[in-house]
Amino acid sequence: MSDHAAPVHVESAPEGCARVLRPAPAVPGRPAGPPRVVVLGAGFAGLTAARALGGAPVELVVVDPRDHHLFQPLLYQVATAALSPADIAMPIRAILGRRRNTEVVLGEVIGIDKVRRRVRLPEREIAYDVLVVATGAHHAYFGRDEWAEHAPGLKRLEDAIDIRRRVLLAFERAETATGEEERRRLLTFVVVGDGPTGVEMAGAIAELAKVALARDFHRIDPRGARVLLVEGGLRLLAAFAPESSARAKAALEALGVEVRLGEMVTAFDSAGVALGGVQVSSGTVVWAAGVAASPAARWLGVEPDLLGRVPVGPDLTLRGYPEIFVLGNTSAVAGPDGRALPSLAPVAKRQGEHAARAIRAALESRRAPKPFRYRHAGNLATIGRGRALAEIAGLRLYGRFAWFLWGAVHIAFLIGFRNRAALLLDWLWAYATSRRNARLITSERMG
Amino acid sequence: MSDHAAPVHVESAPEGCARVLRPAPAVPGRPAGPPRVVVLGAGFAGLTAARALGGAPVELVVVDPRDHHLFQPLLYQVATAALSPADIAMPIRAILGRRRNTEVVLGEVIGIDKVRRRVRLPEREIAYDVLVVATGAHHAYFGRDEWAEHAPGLKRLEDAIDIRRRVLLAFERAETATGEEERRRLLTFVVVGDGPTGVEMAGAIAELAKVALARDFHRIDPRGARVLLVEGGLRLLAAFAPESSARAKAALEALGVEVRLGEMVTAFDSAGVALGGVQVSSGTVVWAAGVAASPAARWLGVEPDLLGRVPVGPDLTLRGYPEIFVLGNTSAVAGPDGRALPSLAPVAKRQGEHAARAIRAALESRRAPKPFRYRHAGNLATIGRGRALAEIAGLRLYGRFAWFLWGAVHIAFLIGFRNRAALLLDWLWAYATSRRNARLITSERMG
Repeated sequence: MSDHAAPVHVESAPEGCARVLRPAPAVPGRPAGPPRVVVLGAGFAGLTAARALGGAPVELVVVDPRDHHLFQPLLYQVATAALSPADIAMPIRAILGRRRNTEVVLGEVIGIDKVRRRVRLPEREIAYDVLVVATGAHHAYFGRDEWAEHAPGLKRLEDAIDIRRRVLLAFERAETATGEEERRRLLTFVVVGDGPTGVEMAGAIAELAKVALARDFHRIDPRGARVLLVEGGLRLLAAFAPESSARAKAALEALGVEVRLGEMVTAFDSAGVALGGVQVSSGTVVWAAGVAASPAARWLGVEPDLLGRVPVGPDLTLRGYPEIFVLGNTSAVAGPDGRALPSLAPVAKRQGEHAARAIRAALESRRAPKPFRYRHAGNLATIGRGRALAEIAGLRLYGRFAWFLWGAVHIAFLIGFRNRAALLLDWLWAYATSRRNARLITSERMG
Repeated sequence: MSDHAAPVHVESAPEGCARVLRPAPAVPGRPAGPPRVVVLGAGFAGLTAARALGGAPVELVVVDPRDHHLFQPLLYQVATAALSPADIAMPIRAILGRRRNTEVVLGEVIGIDKVRRRVRLPEREIAYDVLVVATGAHHAYFGRDEWAEHAPGLKRLEDAIDIRRRVLLAFERAETATGEEERRRLLTFVVVGDGPTGVEMAGAIAELAKVALARDFHRIDPRGARVLLVEGGLRLLAAFAPESSARAKAALEALGVEVRLGEMVTAFDSAGVALGGVQVSSGTVVWAAGVAASPAARWLGVEPDLLGRVPVGPDLTLRGYPEIFVLGNTSAVAGPDGRALPSLAPVAKRQGEHAARAIRAALESRRAPKPFRYRHAGNLATIGRGRALAEIAGLRLYGRFAWFLWGAVHIAFLIGFRNRAALLLDWLWAYATSRRNARLITSERMG
């Protein structure tokens, strides 16, 4: 591959007509070749788009700062020691690298030149004919970036390993702590959430304390650990029906989680959090709220929405730039009810498929596909071992059956045979024994 | 548990007579109780001793700076992305913590007071009646500690994750490197070894390059990677028969490894290594040589041997301190041929069993067990997929059968059912597909 792409004219055609991707004649320094599609980000949206373009007559370049695709919906299980990092991560090269038309680049994007059609990396530029921006989201602290040190978020594998270390170390430190007050502080866990991750995280920490670790300590009783779930909203899992929200709350409370609705964390430091004016002494705070999009809006020079997302039209492209698709958590596209679509893996995957279809249609000078529409199939959330909530096709399920459904859906979604088998084994083992496999504190920082 | 142990008189009896552990009357500040055995280190020696004392009428305290027991013989498989960290590590609490007489303390030992019988940790002291020192070994750079930055060793889980990151990043960087010379440097791997770990590491890197990664890159051909194994000795695997050494060398060379015998690395930095006066340009150096014992000799105030080990008598105790056992890689005990016993897991385990037997005998005022003797059962080493060397009961085996034997022995030795099943699954999968499961670069440091 050369770093110099031929200037290709991408014409924006009237609705319903084929848009034509027409490579210009070869310029010096770059051999004539198929148009180049550059995909930024190998999350659900980017990876789906790249896979769907596998056999297309394009040169495909996938750029990601990490070497692995991450199955984010199960990240909280790594953070609570139920799964190993490798269970939910897959090398991008192993998924895409063997295709002849696909190049995988490990690199950090620092800018996009929309006019010259180039993606800027620290040491090189990559020219594109079509650009797919799917760089996901990271956690945001509403402008209070200094909170990050005390309340790690949960987006990357490193975050999960860090949270696992903090949670497990809290029990270890409590075991050797000298004062009762300090012990109580160390055994208080606060999860700040505004979605399924907060619910799942709080449930998983409670189970870790009350089941997996229950009998492993001598001076402390991990079952006495206090787990708080703080939610700004007035009910849990706002995407679900109110009845499901009530069930989720009851299930968490049965696990011993204190659910604080309509409350906000106003300050925190290493001593604990301020919660509606009251100081709660806590050694571990997990941030499962405030997701913001990547810097894509800045790169593209457009005004983002309140959550940092890039507004796109119903064809998922940037206004005025039909060769730039923005997908997944990076983009804001209105759903059928006019509200932005939720940040969910199925949405991202559908968008990746749609973009690939549109690119193929343009390549073949066919009619562009119909505007993107997302039909929400249902909601799934799990609350500890053997309990889940499912809302599918008008049905509301709860309990063990919903949990099996949840497990089946997640295993089916995971890419790669090995991961499925290992995951299944880890889960069966955990279910049979109530133990955790991945109780590992790995880090230089023991202090 | 209290931190104050009663002074207990440990009398050294003439050979063949029972040594008596006789608790003194209770002193203020400590309730009278069973004698306290403190075990430092939960490696093979310490863990075996602790397990064997499970039902004994003692108060047992196990101190380790890590929360997990590590199955070190397979650490190189984590470093080369074949196994996940959790496959070969097990929380010490999960192994020992549920016993009523056993307390597990996560902590770093900073000193031992032989007279007052106390182990010093940064924030507390733990009194002992009997002390078992089994703090293992770490890699040493023959006084050139500045080499550590460029040539990580392989002793802890973090080391393996770090090496995995370096090796995988080397291929990623080579893929995007601009000059041919730089690419060659990045694709040259040097393993400095003086034992089985070096042989296994070199073989595993060669296989990673030539099989698992072979088709995942576009600009580089990983099969062209150069892997050097540098050994100071004149043959590989000195513990094996010369014929086996020759077979190991041939097998490595068949994998494309350049074996350099009788050579020494005299200098290295980020550009490469100096090898017998010749500069070899290399991006990744792995240190599998120069193991030195822990600071136990300093703590105990005794003169160590050349490898930093504490000399002990045939009863595995420190001369003049029959209540202090020193085991495993931390100690130097003469084998039947007068030479120090090798640094192997079976040696450490036998010593742990012996110490536990001696402690039980003293508790019950029985005759002390016979002096420690180690009968070496055999040698095993593996060289890549499906090939191994075994020397057992005078038989020399080589090839696929030896490899299955090697796998069976290692799985049988692993503690905990889950690990065995997961390991088996990982291996079967890797064997069936020649892929690697754990190709993950996890670290903040991408640069």
